[in-house]
Amino acid sequence: MKLNIAVLPGDGIGPEVTKQAKKVLEAVAHQFNHTFIFKEALVGAVAIDKTGEPFPQETMDLCLNTDAVLFGAIGDPKYDNDPSAKVRPEQGLLKMRKDLGLFTNIRPVKAFEQLLDKSPLKKEIIKGADLTIYRELTGGIYFGEKKISEDGKTASDLGEYSAYEIERIAHAAFKAAQVRRKKLTLVDKANVLESSRLWRKVVTEIAKEYKDVELHYLFVDNAAMQMILNPTQFDVILTDNLFGDIISDEASVIGGSIGLLASASVGEKHAVFEPIHGSYPQATGKGIANPIASILSAAMLLEHFDLHEEAAVIHKAVNKSLELKISTPDILPDSKITTSKVGDFIADYI
Amino acid sequence: MKLNIAVLPGDGIGPEVTKQAKKVLEAVAHQFNHTFIFKEALVGAVAIDKTGEPFPQETMDLCLNTDAVLFGAIGDPKYDNDPSAKVRPEQGLLKMRKDLGLFTNIRPVKAFEQLLDKSPLKKEIIKGADLTIYRELTGGIYFGEKKISEDGKTASDLGEYSAYEIERIAHAAFKAAQVRRKKLTLVDKANVLESSRLWRKVVTEIAKEYKDVELHYLFVDNAAMQMILNPTQFDVILTDNLFGDIISDEASVIGGSIGLLASASVGEKHAVFEPIHGSYPQATGKGIANPIASILSAAMLLEHFDLHEEAAVIHKAVNKSLELKISTPDILPDSKITTSKVGDFIADYI
Ligand SMILES: CC(C)[C@H](C(=O)O)[C@@H](O)C(=O)O
Ligand SMILES: CC(C)[C@H](C(=O)O)[C@@H](O)C(=O)O
Repeated sequence: MKLNIAVLPGDGIGPEVTKQAKKVLEAVAHQFNHTFIFKEALVGAVAIDKTGEPFPQETMDLCLNTDAVLFGAIGDPKYDNDPSAKVRPEQGLLKMRKDLGLFTNIRPVKAFEQLLDKSPLKKEIIKGADLTIYRELTGGIYFGEKKISEDGKTASDLGEYSAYEIERIAHAAFKAAQVRRKKLTLVDKANVLESSRLWRKVVTEIAKEYKDVELHYLFVDNAAMQMILNPTQFDVILTDNLFGDIISDEASVIGGSIGLLASASVGEKHAVFEPIHGSYPQATGKGIANPIASILSAAMLLEHFDLHEEAAVIHKAVNKSLELKISTPDILPDSKITTSKVGDFIADYI
Repeated sequence: MKLNIAVLPGDGIGPEVTKQAKKVLEAVAHQFNHTFIFKEALVGAVAIDKTGEPFPQETMDLCLNTDAVLFGAIGDPKYDNDPSAKVRPEQGLLKMRKDLGLFTNIRPVKAFEQLLDKSPLKKEIIKGADLTIYRELTGGIYFGEKKISEDGKTASDLGEYSAYEIERIAHAAFKAAQVRRKKLTLVDKANVLESSRLWRKVVTEIAKEYKDVELHYLFVDNAAMQMILNPTQFDVILTDNLFGDIISDEASVIGGSIGLLASASVGEKHAVFEPIHGSYPQATGKGIANPIASILSAAMLLEHFDLHEEAAVIHKAVNKSLELKISTPDILPDSKITTSKVGDFIADYI
């Protein structure tokens, strides 16, 4: 298979980890006789610094004309506490999601057998946990109208959803549940929010087309608690943009390190694969960033093109690295093994 | 001291636990020579059933004319999955908060020494955790304009904050931090939400008046993760209505049971004291509900009137009950000890 892959390393540790994912994809290409053609482009703070825009047109054009995007991370502390900054790196990420129509964000969370001890949760709580979060990614309060009054004393964000936006991701989530453990939990705040009540209505309706899937409802506050009390109860979680952001970061504690969690953001035409973690600026350039989240994102990319065997090989190699403790310090506290060493091992193993 | 206390038992286990809190307050009155006069009123599903309103005028009048309100819990499953229900029990709670002007919700979370083993989190993670969440309670997306389009296909909620709303709770939170460990963490989503950027601006400004308090900023997704990875890093958390709802339920796992967590909702003129937990309908009438959250809410009520010694005695009695394992099954799995037995013990001890 021939695939054109756009690589958007972004900020902080983004470039370091993406490099390893690329290395691994090259090993897969070599081993399975595929042709993967990589082209790089700017995004995030580094794009602002060079072009004034967090998601320049050139980057957009590249993304539109490739089969898939491998994304690093974005964000720079110099923008975080400056509420008045007109341009912020996050806008690049949000613009990319919106303009490429990436409405379904898929975030799998699993307790790795080798890392059961690493989680802040007790072993017996997380053992066997295996869930996937379907987070809506191009709607809700992230993209609703934002207002600030003239005197700067009142600010607002509109959280809006249409039935159509809910339907398309709901179908994706139900289909995922069908090939998993056939349980779908809708997380919302329907006791307070009108938009959540629409989610409940639409999803309840769609559930009739997926009679083999059991539908559960959970208020987001309770979900935030249940995720820790009993994570194995979850199979597929379906939720909106904001709740998905919070719940998926929270769920990352199950895996023992956020440095292990991959994600796919998929639309009708385009797909972006990225680690869940951010740009982690304190770690930049130190070789301590865990590349596994980015590497597993590459595996999700392969899955997306039905290259299941290839994806499975990556998973096997990752497991092997964990087993042999070829790991960065987030997993192995005093480890001297660097980001690129982990990447090398995984690529070589393949 | 003479106090008029309105008692609003509400739904589900609300009446059972509130009864114990009242019992404990009566013991305190007796022991310390206070006069507490209790008057009951309807709220929640039970109020809807009897009057058609979740927060009837009569209840409102009682609350307006008492010194404090002791609140149980509200919510009934018959309303949860009915997005079309015009009247819902939660509206009673929200109306009460709004009409009584209870803008500051205080939720203390502590790892009880006797219960370190009960948490899904590892002992070494929670040991020493002692934080208080200041959640804004009468603004934000809970109370912003709600819309549903005529064809029912689009729904929205407006998340709005004014500088004034932020200022008044921020002052309360900074003052609390001053008499605690002098650290305040603002939890928001300022990289996406305009209203969060206003929170950051206003709180940063107010921080200048509290130079002895260290101000930290944390995005809510990261906060949801940090709460589990390292809860002892937090002292006072300040956040908006929606994020506070999620983060405080999540934080409840630290204590080992949500049945232990109390809260105070305070405004200029009125104050309501209630457990964090909901109406827990599955447990209703079984005598398995933990009354401690409600009892500790009563202790917060006493604190509110500067009855520190009295509050301390309640805490001591609660600790004793935990030590002697006079506990409901949420804490002691096979316990046959009922809600009212726990209340009896604590009242007798006082
Ligand atoms: C960087 C930020 C805008 C982004 C989000 O909130 O979606 C991130 O937290 C994520 O989850 O991908
Ligand atoms: C019942 C519900 C409306 C309420 C809220 O979301 O505020 C509850 O979850 C709480 O936290 O007190």
